[in-house]
Amino acid sequence: MIEVQEAQRPSLLNEHGDVLRVAIVGCGYWGKNLVRNFFEAPGCTVSHICDLDQNALASIGRRYPTAQLTRDYSEVLRDPSVDAVAIATQASSHYLLARAALESGKHVWVEKPLTLHFREAQELTELALRNRLTLMVDHTFIYTGAVKRMRESVNSNELGDLLYYDSVRVNLGLYNHDVNVIWDLAVHDLAIMDYVLPFQPIAVSATAASHIGTGGSESLAYVTLHFKENFIAHFHVNWLAPVKIRLTTLCGTNRMIVYDDTVPSEKVRIYDRGVTVSKLEPSSHDRTRLQVDYRTGDMYSPMLDQSEALQVGARHFASCVRSGETPYTDGQVGSRIVSFLEAAERSLKVGGRMESIDW
Amino acid sequence: MIEVQEAQRPSLLNEHGDVLRVAIVGCGYWGKNLVRNFFEAPGCTVSHICDLDQNALASIGRRYPTAQLTRDYSEVLRDPSVDAVAIATQASSHYLLARAALESGKHVWVEKPLTLHFREAQELTELALRNRLTLMVDHTFIYTGAVKRMRESVNSNELGDLLYYDSVRVNLGLYNHDVNVIWDLAVHDLAIMDYVLPFQPIAVSATAASHIGTGGSESLAYVTLHFKENFIAHFHVNWLAPVKIRLTTLCGTNRMIVYDDTVPSEKVRIYDRGVTVSKLEPSSHDRTRLQVDYRTGDMYSPMLDQSEALQVGARHFASCVRSGETPYTDGQVGSRIVSFLEAAERSLKVGGRMESIDW
Amino acid sequence: MIEVQEAQRPSLLNEHGDVLRVAIVGCGYWGKNLVRNFFEAPGCTVSHICDLDQNALASIGRRYPTAQLTRDYSEVLRDPSVDAVAIATQASSHYLLARAALESGKHVWVEKPLTLHFREAQELTELALRNRLTLMVDHTFIYTGAVKRMRESVNSNELGDLLYYDSVRVNLGLYNHDVNVIWDLAVHDLAIMDYVLPFQPIAVSATAASHIGTGGSESLAYVTLHFKENFIAHFHVNWLAPVKIRLTTLCGTNRMIVYDDTVPSEKVRIYDRGVTVSKLEPSSHDRTRLQVDYRTGDMYSPMLDQSEALQVGARHFASCVRSGETPYTDGQVGSRIVSFLEAAERSLKVGGRMESIDW
Amino acid sequence: MIEVQEAQRPSLLNEHGDVLRVAIVGCGYWGKNLVRNFFEAPGCTVSHICDLDQNALASIGRRYPTAQLTRDYSEVLRDPSVDAVAIATQASSHYLLARAALESGKHVWVEKPLTLHFREAQELTELALRNRLTLMVDHTFIYTGAVKRMRESVNSNELGDLLYYDSVRVNLGLYNHDVNVIWDLAVHDLAIMDYVLPFQPIAVSATAASHIGTGGSESLAYVTLHFKENFIAHFHVNWLAPVKIRLTTLCGTNRMIVYDDTVPSEKVRIYDRGVTVSKLEPSSHDRTRLQVDYRTGDMYSPMLDQSEALQVGARHFASCVRSGETPYTDGQVGSRIVSFLEAAERSLKVGGRMESIDW
Repeated sequence: MIEVQEAQRPSLLNEHGDVLRVAIVGCGYWGKNLVRNFFEAPGCTVSHICDLDQNALASIGRRYPTAQLTRDYSEVLRDPSVDAVAIATQASSHYLLARAALESGKHVWVEKPLTLHFREAQELTELALRNRLTLMVDHTFIYTGAVKRMRESVNSNELGDLLYYDSVRVNLGLYNHDVNVIWDLAVHDLAIMDYVLPFQPIAVSATAASHIGTGGSESLAYVTLHFKENFIAHFHVNWLAPVKIRLTTLCGTNRMIVYDDTVPSEKVRIYDRGVTVSKLEPSSHDRTRLQVDYRTGDMYSPMLDQSEALQVGARHFASCVRSGETPYTDGQVGSRIVSFLEAAERSLKVGGRMESIDW
Repeated sequence: MIEVQEAQRPSLLNEHGDVLRVAIVGCGYWGKNLVRNFFEAPGCTVSHICDLDQNALASIGRRYPTAQLTRDYSEVLRDPSVDAVAIATQASSHYLLARAALESGKHVWVEKPLTLHFREAQELTELALRNRLTLMVDHTFIYTGAVKRMRESVNSNELGDLLYYDSVRVNLGLYNHDVNVIWDLAVHDLAIMDYVLPFQPIAVSATAASHIGTGGSESLAYVTLHFKENFIAHFHVNWLAPVKIRLTTLCGTNRMIVYDDTVPSEKVRIYDRGVTVSKLEPSSHDRTRLQVDYRTGDMYSPMLDQSEALQVGARHFASCVRSGETPYTDGQVGSRIVSFLEAAERSLKVGGRMESIDW
Repeated sequence: MIEVQEAQRPSLLNEHGDVLRVAIVGCGYWGKNLVRNFFEAPGCTVSHICDLDQNALASIGRRYPTAQLTRDYSEVLRDPSVDAVAIATQASSHYLLARAALESGKHVWVEKPLTLHFREAQELTELALRNRLTLMVDHTFIYTGAVKRMRESVNSNELGDLLYYDSVRVNLGLYNHDVNVIWDLAVHDLAIMDYVLPFQPIAVSATAASHIGTGGSESLAYVTLHFKENFIAHFHVNWLAPVKIRLTTLCGTNRMIVYDDTVPSEKVRIYDRGVTVSKLEPSSHDRTRLQVDYRTGDMYSPMLDQSEALQVGARHFASCVRSGETPYTDGQVGSRIVSFLEAAERSLKVGGRMESIDW
Repeated sequence: MIEVQEAQRPSLLNEHGDVLRVAIVGCGYWGKNLVRNFFEAPGCTVSHICDLDQNALASIGRRYPTAQLTRDYSEVLRDPSVDAVAIATQASSHYLLARAALESGKHVWVEKPLTLHFREAQELTELALRNRLTLMVDHTFIYTGAVKRMRESVNSNELGDLLYYDSVRVNLGLYNHDVNVIWDLAVHDLAIMDYVLPFQPIAVSATAASHIGTGGSESLAYVTLHFKENFIAHFHVNWLAPVKIRLTTLCGTNRMIVYDDTVPSEKVRIYDRGVTVSKLEPSSHDRTRLQVDYRTGDMYSPMLDQSEALQVGARHFASCVRSGETPYTDGQVGSRIVSFLEAAERSLKVGGRMESIDW
């Protein structure tokens, strides 16, 4: 999709051999995971860790004494030995931090969501393309064995005609303080759905509740995606649920997939169940009638690649930086997901009315 | 609520002593359960079984040779020894069959939904009141130990401020051929919610999908109930799901209840979990900020009354017939549920727009 | 195995056409199930219900008014219109009741265990053979789709070399007052194992606990079966467990089966997991070493026949009576299971020492 | 139990302030966990990492560049700045490595089992006592919130009279190559049981199977513990099970505890269920009869301390080193567990006969 002439890409700097030097920006819960994974990924190292909080820096520095610690992001950008920047800060800062990095000639990894506005996401995507830099959004579930297997099921057509996609992603507690539950949780479901389905939604409607006083953001939401095809997708995301649920169902006329991310094994189950519709002969007192039969058969749970998604993602990023290939979750994908999220946000504001997706 | 002068109610006919004689109309899957339960309920017997299908009658007659079998409903209504009629036919016939019974002086038990139109439901309710007859809708879950326990939790205020109600009722296969999935499955959730909550919804929005060709009714729907209170209810009902789920969550600020009807024991679990919001002191660069804390504690699963709901309901019906008391699920309740269902149906027809409830 | 000349078997009595007339003896919990199932089985009817308890008789008589009620077993045996007797009384009475029935020319169905002593079981088996009568023990799990599927897995050799059989059958409460937990619960596991495995145990050891004072029977036991083959079977049976568990595992070198009878669907799961052992080249400082590899693959849960086991069994009994074929669970099988139980009982008495099986 | 005069204990060396310097010996799977946890424990650091495998050392050294790496254990023991040694090598080497450390004046942490022979375990215990050094065995489950809660239930007497202890610890694959499944897995159950119960076993019997050819060690075992009290304990440990199970049940006459370590939350469930036995009046034809009633009530799942057990253990070790207090899992406890394991091993060798415990 993105045409890049390999020769003109910035090559990995010679003084560090072939090692990809990544600066991690933001060392909260997820940033720490990035540090660990870029240290563990072959051919990668973490050159800098950057955070505004001096204590957080000191703490992680004790664990990883070889990384340079800094509170000054421009220092990172000025350092020519830094090949790439991985941004794990609050969502509202993604756009500016990523833009500055791309302008400084750094490859960029950004946590989800790519930005808070579609136009900003597009701008980053174009900037990366123009500067021949890799831009990858960490839609982390795309790099799991489970989601990969779901996509294969769809591509192999074993499900028959697709009927609906339903997902429940709920737990107690929020992990993100600057966005609401849609931007925090539904972003995962949108990214998975976008990766798995062969078609794209045209409109979205969303309902939400904000329970925590004036000024609080939505902590519970129901999001429906509408398609040209006779297909519907629905997500329930929730920070106020007593029990953690991560349950995705994708049904077709021939087979149905259930992906339960809370169980230790057999996360993906494929049910040989479905529905067949046949037309009955019209009788005198009847309009054309339909005979609906439900079919139930075996269940099958394929063995999945158990690798840590973040490690798979980190290696994919490194590989794309080296080869110039487009990441599975590039700026285009990240922009599309942001456009879904923005449309959902607009729907919330107009009482759940259907909003078309500007994509 | 309904004032009835006991002396004027039709007394149980003397020639049969104190035994309540019930005619069962419709002997499909649920009708057979009614026959068995009214035979087993103390002080009750099944006097007639009425169905249009001669084979179905013959088959059940072998099991219950003391009941009179008939294809002629008016024969049942004319028989002065029949005290009550229990209607388990297709939903579209409920209104006419129930009206005729009430006009014939019979107490009436009707399967859910009471009728397909609110005006009809109201007419039956008024007719029963005028004729001093018991009219009870079989909202069967109201008579389970689980739902009773949920209502007690709400009434005792142990949940704190109520936040939301969420229910998933999905499986493979439909059991009702003349109505869509909302009238078939969501009717249960609406009845449970109506019984458990201390307030009532003011509007409803619904989205659905019909996957089985032209003319097929909706087999999958998402229904949202809106309240004046800062509260939301949402139901997912589905005939096309690979795995049966019956999961209801009712959350408050202090405690959260989960009711899972698919497990053999511990169906109701009460989590001592919640959320507290406190205002932080505004600092110079901040607007008023909120400190949100999630609290997690013990879980508790109360022992529940294990009686079969239909048996509890049958006894409750018999008791109301005898005493003149109003059933928990009387015509008023049945009418209200029909008004919710009609509003959901209207919302479906206008693309999921919010429809106010005419109640 | 049993050679019978069909012409000499007692034919079903002509005056009742081809209907098999069964007398049910004992109408407790399981006896009621027998009554229902022999009424429902095609070509069968329940002619008599016999019990010492007049109230129990009266109660079941109201449900099944066509069956003759009697407290006098010899009346049943003398009635030439009775083709078969189904015995669902306490285990200690099985032998005498079954012997009298066989001596009176009746086909016999007996609840498990067949008798309390191997010699008695053998005597019944021989008596049935001599009198050309069908004798069938109600080892009910043999007639489930799940156990049938396990046997097919073994027969098709898909499991590889069999390694072990492990079963846990525990719950709170006892259902049988005249025998201990081994005779009440382990009898099921022994019957399933005997049906599924291609070889038989040669010895048994058992440990048990009796917690309910002097004179109380064992309420918790661990039973180990020993085989000539490199194979072991172990059962945990328990009346004092807080949660009901019914979990059987049969493992081979190529595949492993788990049968969970407490779940509503996917009761049988076949795991493509196993272990391979290969000899490593001996090195200078090593004795012959073994390389053990664990292999993990897909899981597969076949659709099972969902028919009620008791109905399948009742039809099988009727079919064997008519054709003279040997039931799957005939007197030979019943005797063998009794010999296992007796050996386990002997082992209990000698502190868990291994006792050989007299078979 | 162990009397130590605090003044004479070796004090933490002054040149490192108050920091406890721990050398980790063996950096396999568990050794790496020790390195991480002693780095994270407040007031502790990892001074050395010692392993025979140069590659393993190099790999972990990249993660923890401040630790000294060495293949020479005596170098560690000679270094006066090392306060304690944590041994995570194969079980057969524990005795010699721990003895050398204690002789060199180092406090010692040893992985389970303490040694392979009771006499060796005792010798280490006495040596530590004599040299006023802390000796702690890493029976890691003792430091979980779940096991702590089980012990509290027993101590508070809420269970009533204790009836039995049953545990299943099975999975596919072994993690330990120099011992059999009893020494690898049952050691956990024995340590938990020993910590939770108020009394101790007097004998053990064990049955096992070795499926992996000549020379292979036992991969599946059933172990029964016998007590003077009317109580029984039984463990099923297994490396050849398709599904991981970690399920412990401890039942009393008043309440029953189930501890399921495979679920993410509600690991401990306390069932208000039990059994009551009362003597019935003897009637003429009866011996003294017992009336047994099963009681079922609520279930309750207490919130547990979620801290990582190894971190709790590391802090406890550091605290005991500093204060001279006896660890919960000291040499005495470790020796007792070894004596149970040795008795189980002897029982295996004599065909499962009961072996008394030399304690």
